[in-house]
Order: sequence, then C-alpha cells, then structure tokens
Amino acid sequence: MFEARLTQGSLLKKVMEAIRELLNEASFDCSENGIQLQAMDNSHVSLVSLNMGSEGFDKFRCDRNLTMGMNLASLSKILKCASNSDAITLKAQDDPDTVTFTFESENNERVSDYSMKLINLDQEHLGIPDTEYSCVVKMPSADFARICKDLSQFGDCITISCTKEGIKFSVAGDIGTGNVKLAQTANVDKESEAVTVEMQEPVSLTFACRYLNHFTKATPLSEQVQLSLSADVPLVVEYKIGEFGHIRYYLAPKIDEDD
Amino acid sequence: MFEARLTQGSLLKKVMEAIRELLNEASFDCSENGIQLQAMDNSHVSLVSLNMGSEGFDKFRCDRNLTMGMNLASLSKILKCASNSDAITLKAQDDPDTVTFTFESENNERVSDYSMKLINLDQEHLGIPDTEYSCVVKMPSADFARICKDLSQFGDCITISCTKEGIKFSVAGDIGTGNVKLAQTANVDKESEAVTVEMQEPVSLTFACRYLNHFTKATPLSEQVQLSLSADVPLVVEYKIGEFGHIRYYLAPKIDEDD
Amino acid sequence: MFEARLTQGSLLKKVMEAIRELLNEASFDCSENGIQLQAMDNSHVSLVSLNMGSEGFDKFRCDRNLTMGMNLASLSKILKCASNSDAITLKAQDDPDTVTFTFESENNERVSDYSMKLINLDQEHLGIPDTEYSCVVKMPSADFARICKDLSQFGDCITISCTKEGIKFSVAGDIGTGNVKLAQTANVDKESEAVTVEMQEPVSLTFACRYLNHFTKATPLSEQVQLSLSADVPLVVEYKIGEFGHIRYYLAPKIDEDD
Repeated sequence: MFEARLTQGSLLKKVMEAIRELLNEASFDCSENGIQLQAMDNSHVSLVSLNMGSEGFDKFRCDRNLTMGMNLASLSKILKCASNSDAITLKAQDDPDTVTFTFESENNERVSDYSMKLINLDQEHLGIPDTEYSCVVKMPSADFARICKDLSQFGDCITISCTKEGIKFSVAGDIGTGNVKLAQTANVDKESEAVTVEMQEPVSLTFACRYLNHFTKATPLSEQVQLSLSADVPLVVEYKIGEFGHIRYYLAPKIDEDD
Repeated sequence: MFEARLTQGSLLKKVMEAIRELLNEASFDCSENGIQLQAMDNSHVSLVSLNMGSEGFDKFRCDRNLTMGMNLASLSKILKCASNSDAITLKAQDDPDTVTFTFESENNERVSDYSMKLINLDQEHLGIPDTEYSCVVKMPSADFARICKDLSQFGDCITISCTKEGIKFSVAGDIGTGNVKLAQTANVDKESEAVTVEMQEPVSLTFACRYLNHFTKATPLSEQVQLSLSADVPLVVEYKIGEFGHIRYYLAPKIDEDD
Repeated sequence: MFEARLTQGSLLKKVMEAIRELLNEASFDCSENGIQLQAMDNSHVSLVSLNMGSEGFDKFRCDRNLTMGMNLASLSKILKCASNSDAITLKAQDDPDTVTFTFESENNERVSDYSMKLINLDQEHLGIPDTEYSCVVKMPSADFARICKDLSQFGDCITISCTKEGIKFSVAGDIGTGNVKLAQTANVDKESEAVTVEMQEPVSLTFACRYLNHFTKATPLSEQVQLSLSADVPLVVEYKIGEFGHIRYYLAPKIDEDD
C-alpha cells in the first residue's frame, strides 16, 4: 500500500509543469523516504532529478518500495482537474497497475478521484557525483527566467560568466550582441530578491538556450533559483519544492569548437 | 413597431455567447409577452429554448407579433461593439427586413447604432412536454462548467448520477477513469455556492460531453445552474437570465448499447 | 559621439509598438534637437512622422548629425528585453555601424547592454505642408481605438464626419451599417476623457480601416488622440509622447468613385 497526501496540492501541479516539457514519460520511485524521479529529457541531453521527502506530506505511507511509470501528458490532464486549493492524495497497491489521485476541496464538499493506468518504463539510474562547484549563484528565479527568454531571441547559446562581483549572461547572434549583468546584492529587504555569489574561482561556460528555457518552467515552485557551475562539468539549476524537496536540472556546457 | 430597451445591455451580450456556438442562425419571436427563441443546434442533437419576459425590459413595445431571423455571427459582431455598461435598444418595423441596435453609454455621450439585415428561416416549433423530473439539482454554474471541461479530457461521454446525498459526474477513457462528487450543501453563506438536490428517485444517465460544454457557455448569465434529470427523457440544463428570463438546453441521454 | 538617456524607458518601448506594424525598417535622424523619424509605411500608403525633442531626455549629446538605419524587428526584440521601469540609454559613434542600448534597473543591480548592427536605407524626406484644418478633434485615444476596431468588422472603410456637435464614425457592409456618435463633452472631471471639436467647416471623409487600426497601436502613448481633417488632404492622427514629442500618422482620404 502506498498513500501520500499533500494539503497544498498546487505544489504537485507546479512540479508537473516543471517536467512536462522535458519528459514524455517518467518513473516515480516511492519509498518510505519519499518520492523521487530521475530521467534524461526526451532528446537525451539534460537530466532532471526530482526529490520530495516524505516529511513534507501530511500523510505518507509506503509499505514496499515501488516504481510507477507514468505518461506525463495523461498525468498533466489529471492534475489540471485539481483546483489550486485542493488537497491531493496519491494511492496505489503494492504491485500496482494503476494509481489513484483524489482531490478534496477545502470544505470537502467536492471530492474527485482519477485512476490512471501505469506503464512499464526502462530505467537507468545515473550516478550523479557530488561535486564542489567553482561558483554557486542564488538569484530570483523570475529574473533567471526572464533573462533566458530575452537572450534566446538573439542566439542559440547563452554564456554564463561568474566572478565575485556578480553574474553575467551573454549572447551573440546575427543582429548583434547582448549582455545582462547582475551585481551581488549588498542587503535587500526581501531575501527572495537577493543575488548572492559564492565563488572559488571565476567560470565562464556556454549552454544551449533551449534547455535553460525548459528548466525555467519550474519558476513558480520557488522565488529563488540556484545555479552551480564548474568548468567541464554540467551546470546544476535547482529549485526548492517547499521545505521538503527540490528539482534539479543538469546540463553539460558547450565545448568551444575552436579548442 | 417593435422596440425593446435593456439598461443592462451586458445581459444580451451574454445571451449571445450562450447560443452562438450551438446555432448559426436563429429566429427570435417577439410578442407583447417578450422575446423567445427555440431552435435545434446545428447538428440537430440538442435543443435551445430562450425566454426573456417583457417585464424585464425598461421599455417594451410590440404592436404585432413578429419573427426576426438573424445570422448569429453577424449579431455577435454587432453586440461585441456594445460596452458592458451600455444600454441596448432593439427596434424594428412591423414587417421588418432589418433590425436596429442602439447602444448608449452611461453618460449618453457615445451613441452607436447598427442596422442588420434579417434573413428568412424555416421554423419548426417543437412542443416540449411538461415533465416531472426524478432529480432536480441546483449547483454553482462555474463548478458545472469546470467539471464538464475537466472530464471531457478523458472521454466523450459523462455519466451524471444523482442520489439524495449529492451528484456524481463520471468518465472513463483510455488513460483511466474520473469521478467528481458534490455533496448536498448543509448551509452555505452564499446561496450562489449551494448544491441542492430534490430527488424523487435516483438516476444515472450518460451524455455527450461536447454538448454539455456548449451549454456551459451560458455560465456568465447566472451563478447557479439547474439540472433536471429523468430516465429516458432529455436532460434540461437551465440558466436564469436576471429575474425575467431563462435559457434552457435539452439533451437526450445516450442509450446504453449493451441493452 | 551620440548619447541619449531616458529614465522612463517604457516610452521608447511604446514608441516602438506604435511603428512596428507599419514599418519594417526605418532611419532615425539624430541632431542636437533630438531624434526624428519620417517614413512611408511598408505599402507606401500612409506616412509616419516621429519627433522626440532633446529636452525630454535626462542626458542628450549629439556631436554630429547622424542617421541610423534600423531593422525594426531587431529593434523590437531588443526593447522587449527592457523592463518597463528601466532607464534606457542609446549610444553610437559619430559615423556608426552599430548602436548600443543600455538598460538599467531602478536599483542599478541589473544592467543590460545590447549592440545592434545598423543598416543603410534610402531616404526620401517628404515635405509636409503646414495646413489649416477644417476640423480638429481631440478625444480619448482608447475610444478611438475601440471604434476603429469595432467598425472594421463590418467593412473596409470608415467615414469620419465632423460637425460642431461632435464626431461620427460610420461603416456600411454586407451585413448592415453602423454609426458611432460622440458628442462634444460639456465639462468632464478628467481632461483625458474629454471630446472637443474645433470646427471651421464640417467635413466628411472616408479612410481605410486597415491603416487606422495600425495607427491605434500608439494608444498606450497618450490618453488623448488628435484628429485633424480637411477635405482632400490627408487626415492627421497625432499622439503626444510625454511632454517632449509626438507621433503623427498621415492618411489620404478615399476618393469617392461616383465623382
């Protein structure tokens, strides 16, 4: 028996939005620790890693570890039927071929349940090595989304350069060049508006806009995004899920073809 | 001479939205009692019946009964030109080939008039027998619209089941099943949020989503919708038009093919 | 060296929106007096004339007169990257082949710069004779936009008739006719809502809807629009740009084919 109840069901809706552009289908691994997902995107370029700890659920029971393969277009249809203020409960048997979603309105006067067939998916768990990053930047997630979208107009790749003064995003294309510079913030009233840089050594790496823009679909999950950069290793773009989880996107930098 | 003036012109705009998906053209019957319309939808599956009593108009004069056939795409274009706060006046001669719409802004500083050619339409008035329904449900119209839209994602038909506890909407399709249950509300602060069920005997009937979704275009007219159900007779979906009229949609249930 | 800084950068964004539907590319003429642009629209029917006086800029320096030819699709992409509250600075060398745009956020923590290649454009400056107009109408720009859009549904041309009582917009087409009449306002609380008519003699002229609708893209620039009309000369539609500039559109009336 697996059962997980989240009063703030809107979080699940946002998680869904954060992965559905990247993944057609995905396996959710459930254990007593919570729910996890790890998958390469459809084009096998970037990696998504999702973690929701059991402590964040109002009710969480997982008698036996289980893996639920879901078609994300179907899952998205179902979660769209939940109102933002609904509580959402997932239920499955120990060796399930369906999963059930129950949505309860605040006053409990509307109760919906949706049952979805599960699918079998090949799984390959990639070990993600723990890395010390040269630069770790925290910045408002909405700014990151805006910058990626703006600069994508001018070229296919964005170069992210980080020094202790701040972070710079650059693009060059047919119609010209663009740079957006964010200074590390001294002190800000709202923590959510801060830009902070922890730097061991400066880095400058180039990434495909297309994937960065996919990652920013997680923006509604968190007011801040964390970018971790080191030369020659994948960028990590991380959004917190409440206080009990995160979604991380990994994307390898472009190799400079002149080298 | 026919003349009808409605200070709250936005009502007419909403009535138009409520029928334009279902009907390409329609005959409006005007008499001293008010304005009526009855028509099968374009695909001859459902029936629309509209009634606006003369008492709801600020001014209403109809010297001789008359029938005005209108192209609803044209009518829709004209009513779009009225602001929501405009008063709307309809005028026609006794044996008219055009109808005139006058829109007056609140301060009367903007006055628009549109003249539209009428068309000749065949008419067949269907007698709608008075029926005692097994179940009559009143519920928030926005909830009904949301449920029809949500469940339509999963299949072509929705089963509406009604007991004295409440009403259930169900769907089954390729990706799974869905149910939305609304309990009869005990006491609610706002009457518009109440769910009430008057039941003689329980019913469970299945309807094509497509038409239910068309009917919900009337949602802006009224905060509550009334569903009347009996085995083997058409469902009636009714929205009030202010205090002086209503729009009713009739849709026959699907016959269970296993019978 | 050319440098022009505008704290209220959103004005430049609005100017861009006001011309980009009409023009694919345009030459901006810079002198110590400010920035000017004059161009026929893509189909060579209407004329756009833009003027921003140097006094409206926080900083304005233009050592030598220069002309910068820009692709407006590219310029539009760049200006979209400016937030509405950003200050915008344009910079160019004396004989430039690029222009640089710098966007600074209010707290100066985000600084973006975009460099765009200039293009060479043929230029033909048309002398626009000073004309005494028979009628000069000022009216709310949003009303003008709404009326042009509404009436365009019914025909290709709008007839604008002006008397000392007010202004009338008319259309006739297949489905019928439409007229919108605005009375000169006696006294209004808000100047922006006034309709005023200065009339030497009444006029009635017909214009292509298509261009009028293009002109109304300038609506966000100003709450009032000024229409200047005389028989047989182009209509002038003018929007103020703050206190220091204007955009004027010129459109010749349709010749009555019965003449």
